[in-house]
Formats: sequence, C-alpha cells, structure tokens
Amino acid sequence: MSSDGFRPLDEKLLVEYVKSTPSLAAKLGNQFDDLQIKEVGDGNLNFVYIVVGSSGSFVIKQALPYIRCIGESWPMTKERAYFEVTALREEGSLCPDHVPEVYHFDRQMCLIGMRYVEPPHIILRKGLIAGIEYPKLAEHISGFMAKTLFYTSLLYLTTTDHKSAVAKFCGNVELCRLTEQVVFSDPYKVSEYNHWTTPYLDADAEAVREDNILKLEVAELKSKFCERTQALIHGDLHTGSVMVTTDSTQVIDPEFAFYGPMGFDVGAFIGNLILAYFAQDGHADKGPDRKLYKEWILKTISDTWNLFYEKFTALWDKHKDGPGEAYLPAIYNNPELQVLVKQKYMEDLFHDTLGFGAAKMIRRIVGVAHVEDFESIKEASKRAECERKALNFAKTLLKERKKFHNISEVVSAIKDVDK
Amino acid sequence: MSSDGFRPLDEKLLVEYVKSTPSLAAKLGNQFDDLQIKEVGDGNLNFVYIVVGSSGSFVIKQALPYIRCIGESWPMTKERAYFEVTALREEGSLCPDHVPEVYHFDRQMCLIGMRYVEPPHIILRKGLIAGIEYPKLAEHISGFMAKTLFYTSLLYLTTTDHKSAVAKFCGNVELCRLTEQVVFSDPYKVSEYNHWTTPYLDADAEAVREDNILKLEVAELKSKFCERTQALIHGDLHTGSVMVTTDSTQVIDPEFAFYGPMGFDVGAFIGNLILAYFAQDGHADKGPDRKLYKEWILKTISDTWNLFYEKFTALWDKHKDGPGEAYLPAIYNNPELQVLVKQKYMEDLFHDTLGFGAAKMIRRIVGVAHVEDFESIKEASKRAECERKALNFAKTLLKERKKFHNISEVVSAIKDVDK
Ligand SMILES: Nc1ncnc2c1ncn2[C@@H]1O[C@H](COP(=O)(O)OP(=O)(O)O)[C@@H](O)[C@H]1O
Ligand SMILES: Nc1ncnc2c1ncn2[C@@H]1O[C@H](COP(=O)(O)OP(=O)(O)O)[C@@H](O)[C@H]1O
Ligand SMILES: [Mg+2]
Ligand SMILES: [Mg+2]
Ligand SMILES: [Mg+2]
Ligand SMILES: [Mg+2]
Ligand SMILES: [Mg+2]
Repeated sequence: MSSDGFRPLDEKLLVEYVKSTPSLAAKLGNQFDDLQIKEVGDGNLNFVYIVVGSSGSFVIKQALPYIRCIGESWPMTKERAYFEVTALREEGSLCPDHVPEVYHFDRQMCLIGMRYVEPPHIILRKGLIAGIEYPKLAEHISGFMAKTLFYTSLLYLTTTDHKSAVAKFCGNVELCRLTEQVVFSDPYKVSEYNHWTTPYLDADAEAVREDNILKLEVAELKSKFCERTQALIHGDLHTGSVMVTTDSTQVIDPEFAFYGPMGFDVGAFIGNLILAYFAQDGHADKGPDRKLYKEWILKTISDTWNLFYEKFTALWDKHKDGPGEAYLPAIYNNPELQVLVKQKYMEDLFHDTLGFGAAKMIRRIVGVAHVEDFESIKEASKRAECERKALNFAKTLLKERKKFHNISEVVSAIKDVDK
Repeated sequence: MSSDGFRPLDEKLLVEYVKSTPSLAAKLGNQFDDLQIKEVGDGNLNFVYIVVGSSGSFVIKQALPYIRCIGESWPMTKERAYFEVTALREEGSLCPDHVPEVYHFDRQMCLIGMRYVEPPHIILRKGLIAGIEYPKLAEHISGFMAKTLFYTSLLYLTTTDHKSAVAKFCGNVELCRLTEQVVFSDPYKVSEYNHWTTPYLDADAEAVREDNILKLEVAELKSKFCERTQALIHGDLHTGSVMVTTDSTQVIDPEFAFYGPMGFDVGAFIGNLILAYFAQDGHADKGPDRKLYKEWILKTISDTWNLFYEKFTALWDKHKDGPGEAYLPAIYNNPELQVLVKQKYMEDLFHDTLGFGAAKMIRRIVGVAHVEDFESIKEASKRAECERKALNFAKTLLKERKKFHNISEVVSAIKDVDK
C-alpha cells in the first residue's frame, strides 16, 4: 500500500475489502461464498467491478492515477473519484429515478460502491448500434438534464450557495483540462493522440486543422467551457454514460462534473445521437430496418430538446418565487417580460447546445477517443463515408449554430446532408 | 474585544495598535510623540485613518461588520478586508506604479496598513468636479486595467492557476451579492433604498422600472457578472476609487474583487467618466471653462478605451507563447486567425464594457448610492436636467450596446444627447 492509503484493486484484494467494509458486506447479506466478480471497464478511464452474490450485488469503481485506455504514460489525478461521487450524490438527490444510488465511498482508495444497474440494462451506445428503440429515452434524459441543470443554477440557487458549490468543483480542474485538450484543442492541431480513418479522411482532418472560422468559433465555446459557471454539469454526458432498457434510463460516470455551461451536457447527448444517426448506414446490413430506426433517432433528438425545454421552463415557472436570485419576481413582474427572458435564456442555451454538440462530434472523428458507433463499422471506406457526413454536418452546425431557431431546423439540416 | 479578536478602532486604540505592531511602528521610525491621526472615510463602506508622524506615514483601513454609510442595519461581512488586501497585493505585484503598497494586514482586526497616497493626490471624482485635467490619466488607468485583467485571465494563466484563484475569490460572495443588489436589482424595482431627484425624475425612475427591454438586457449583464470568471476584477473601479495628481494615478479600494467579467471594470471607469461629463453643465458657473473641460473628458474616454485595447492586445502578443491556455499557438497559428480572434475577443469586451458602464450610470441616478458629481449640484432642477440626460444616454447605451463598433461612435452619441 502506498503511504496515502491507496492500493489498486485486484479480485483478491476486492474480496478482502468488501468483507471488511460493513456497508458493502451488508449489501451482500454478509454472504461471500459464491461471489461473482467481473471487471467490465469498457469505459476509457477507470476500473469497474461488478460484484454479485447470492443475496445482493453492487458495482465498485476505482480511479487509478492514470488514464486507463492510454496507460501510465498519461497520468490523471485519482481525486476524480471524489468529484464523481459528489456529483453522483447531488444528481441522485435531484433525480433519483435516473441515477444509481451510492452505497460507499473511500477517498483514500478512490473507490465508489454503487448500485449495480443490472441487465437487461445495457450501455445506450450499444443499443443504438444494435438498432433498438427506447421509447422513454427522450422523456427520461430530458428530465435528468432539466432537473440537474436547473436546480444547480442561479435560477434556483442563491448566489451564496452557487459560489460555494462553484468553488468546491474548481478542484476538479484536471478533468476540465482533459476536456479542454481532447475536445477543444487536439482536433484543431497536430497531436500525437489524434487519429482518423486513414487515408480516407486525411484531407478532412487537415481541413479541420486549417479552418480559421471553425477555430474562431471553437475559441468562443472553449472560453464558455472554462469561464461560465452556469450549473453543475455532468461533463461527459455521451451515449456511453447512459444505461438503458426500454423502461429505464440510468446516468452513470459524472467524474468530469464541475460548474460549467449547461449546453455542454445537452450538446454532448444530442451530438452523440447525431453520431449514432450517421453511423446507421454502416450497420444497415445488420438486423432491423435502419431507415425506420434513423427516423426514430431523429425523433429522439427532437423530443429530447423539446421536452428539455418544456421541463426546464416548467421548473423555472414552478420556482419563480423560490430561492433563485437571477430573475427576481419584483423585477420580472409581468407575463410579457417573463416570456421574453425565458425565450432569450433558452435561445442562448440552444445555441450553446448546438455548438458544444458539434464540437463533441468533431473530436470523436478526428481526435483521440473515437466512438463504437463508427469503430464497429469494419469496412474502412464505408466507415469513412459515414464519418465524413457527420464531420461535415458538425462543422456547419458549429459555425452556423446561431442561425438555427429550433430543433426541427436542425433535424431538417441532418436530413439534407444525408440525402 | 470580541471573542474573534476583533475590535473597532478609535484614535486611542489605533495608537496602541501601531505601537505594538513592529511593521507599522517601523514606518514611523518608532516616533510616536507627534502623531497626527485623521479619520477620512469619505467612502461608503469602511473607516480609513491617515496616520502621519515626523518620520513617516501610512493609512489604516478597517472593515466593520456593516455598511458604514447605511449603518448597523445593513450588516456586511468584515472578511471583505481579507479580499481587499489579497487583491491589493495581486494588483500591486502586476502594476506597482498605480497601486499603494501594503505594509500590514491583520485578519482578525480586518485591518489593512498601506502606503499613504499623499497630497496633492485627491480622489479623481473630486478633480473631475473641480474641472482639473489629468493628462496622464488615460495612459495610467488603461495600463492598470490591461495588466490586472490580462495577467489574471486565461490568456495568461493556466487553467489550473485560474481555477484555483477563482475558487479563492468565490469566498468574497457577500460583496458580489451587494453589487448584484445595488447595480442589477434595486434600480429596476421598488426598493426602500432607491432615491432620485424628486419630483423631477419621478417619471424617469418609474420608466426604468417598467422598461421590459432594459430589464431583459440587464438580466444578460447580471448573468455575466454572476457566472463569467474571466479575470480578477477590481469590482468597484469608479472615479472614487482612483487618486490622482497630474503626474500620478493610484487605484485603491478593491474590496469587491473577484473573478468576473473584465467589462465590469472597464465599464465602471468609463461609465463614471460619462457621469462626470453630464454633470459638467451643473458646475459651469464654478471655475474653469467647462466647454473645453467636457472635450477633455470625452478625449479621456476615447483614450482610455483605445489605449486599453492597445495595451491589452500588446500583452497578448507578448505572451502568446506563454503559460496561457486559451489560444494555443499550435492552433492559432496564422496571422489572419490571430487578428480574427483578437478582434472578436475585444469586440465582446467592448460591448460588455458599454453594458456594464451603462448599468453603473443608471444605478447612480435612481439607486441607493449616488455620486458627488451630481449631488454637488445644489439646484435640484438643474441637477435633474443633468441626471436625465445621463440616464437617457445610459438606457440607450445599455440596450443598443451591440450596435456600437468603436469608442468614437460612443463619444458621438454622447455629444448628440448633449446638443
Ligand atoms: N453502476 C453500474 N452498473 C452497471 N454497470 C456499470 C455501472 N457503472 C459502470 N458500469 C459499467 O462499466 C463501464 C465503465 O463505467 P464508467 O463509469 O463509464 O467508467 P469510465 O469512467 O472508465 O468511463 C460502463 O460502460 C458500464 O458497462
Ligand atoms: N492609501 C490611501 N491614501 C490616501 N488616502 C486614502 C487611502 N485609502 C483611502 N484613502 C481615503 O479614504 C477614502 C475612503 O477609502 P476607500 O478605500 O475608498 O474606502 P471605502 O471602501 O469605504 O469606499 C478615500 O476616498 C480616500 O480619500
Ligand atoms: Mg464512461
Ligand atoms: Mg468516466
Ligand atoms: Mg471607496
Ligand atoms: Mg462604491
Ligand atoms: Mg470600498
């Protein structure tokens, strides 16, 4: 064990740890004979163990002091586990239906014990690749985003509570830096970590690196990411951070959480749905009718934004006389003005959503971390074709985002590219 | 003495305190026989003692747990002294020519010992009322703003250093709340603290409270004030926080400092110069030719912005390969793009400057704290006439700020109102 009380888990150590940790042992009914332990870290950063016994189960997630998918050559603070558990608890208290419960946290071991989101839950991204429809997804995820973002913003919090929460999450700076690098920087410069479907996209990747207008707009988004403490954002809300069945939606993995721009979360989710859409032609020979499925994805994109808009503004109405200090009722004191301020707020949030969503798409095609949606398309030329459409759409969306007025215009634009 | 070691000073206690504090006693050459002590708190919040001996001098500023000009009925954290001294030291290290040196700080006593900015220095606002020209003012203040804002922004700091500084200054939340209330809220609602030159401006004050478009724009500015951690701002940079001679410019009183939008500082200064301009007709019978003086004020407004622009972008150029992570040289790698990003950054900052400057003007006419520029105009009808021009100009500037492209358009608009 290192002097700070940290030890990387292995299966043996994990069993010892569980046995000697009452809150975890109790979850297994103190039965350890038939324990099944499986490491399932298909994520990028951490180690995740599923622990199932005869009378209970949980998941143990441990952060090691480097990035798992790269290795020890890319160090990364293991303190991220503290911010993950802090965000999980906050999100869980605001939206218990869609966030796994935390059972245990060990700061020295950088280890979180939480509810096992059991099968048939699968990672949403895998469901989208398989062509499975999730009729409640838009409803659920829009609720998660509306609640977590609204209740941590100045629309609900006092300045005092907001600034103290902002200060706390400033400590998660290393994860913010990682996002800055992989989302806002690396794709726009030569970087050893970048890769793409070569040689097909060589010229496309170069064009991204030489597009002055694109870089100008990316700077604006990056500055918002770094400077705008609008709400407690999840920070990594792609389709790999959501586990689903047709009835249930669970959001995991908020280790990137901090006070940032709301549009970064909404954009991450919608941007990854758009990636899923453009990947469908690469899966067209496998399984269900992808034409209809593409329609369902587009509908889910629309519904997600529209329901988010509805739920978020409904929370605003509900709490307009609440503790939030952004829009005092004595000032915003007539219906016309109340409509005006909401429209303006939501319009800005919409444009942020499109900008951040587009940036997240671009980085998944020419940056370090790609998505299984495309990676699972084995034929490189086919994959490149899908990726190019997505990339071109994302570039346009990022540059022209302020010209879009509603999500149906965005959906039309997606269809136009896909003709 | 209260249990936290705090005691409000009086002259007797002050002398004892000085004698028993080596750093202060040394400044007086340990000579205490002929001490002259004068309390000069003409500011709004705190108590300021000038201490002059035969072989040295200093100023002692103490924060009490309420707002001086209102009284104990408006409590205010005395911890503000800690943030003031922290900002004074930071500003002093970045711009020693224009910030008084700190000699001593006592956190329990909420007491700062600093250099006495000696006569003939006077508060700039008083100089503007007296019609005195300060040929170096624009040069000096633009340098102060360029350095303090640039070096504390992401243009110079790493994300790590920036976030840790942001977190520290989140603690100054009570002073931020005070600004929120008196600048962004009270003037736009009925408040017991508001006052104006009645009855002349009754309808004008009411019009401010009923102007939906104005309130919509104020909301945007308030949200930037609360959420945008762009740089360490002074937070109260009006013409009463600047002491001047024709050769020297000293910035005092940064107790409102926190990480906020740069335009709040630049706007405070320029907005208060515009107030001084519109007050001149009320002083026209006293002393120097006010026509020429008004021209000088307008030139100083122009020069302040233009020199700020020049100095700030020169610092950017100088440090473009420095620690700042906002615009990595590998991305912003061609002259055309470098020009584009600077133009965009400075354009946004210009519009913020106009918006915040206008908000600061409005609150000085219909809010709680007025300015001597107008208050010293004894004849109420005359004062109201000056104030109305200023108020109308500020309302237009706030609402139309994004239509202005450079400071000379603003100066022309001022002249138009003053025809
Ligand atoms: N609470 C959970 N229940 C079930 N599976 C989980 C849970 N948490 C994580 N997993 C599984 O582990 C994988 C990696 O977890 P994740 O939190 O995304 O780690 P990383 O931070 O490394 O991306 C997920 O894709 C999922 O398959
Ligand atoms: N360092 C100084 N040297 C000379 N006079 C000072 C100094 N600091 C403050 N003063 C005087 O005290 C007054 C109030 O100081 P200030 O810092 O503005 O207090 P407040 O926070 O109450 O506004 C100033 O207007 C100025 O006249
Ligand atoms: Mg993950
Ligand atoms: Mg993760
Ligand atoms: Mg003052
Ligand atoms: Mg003041
Ligand atoms: Mg002060």
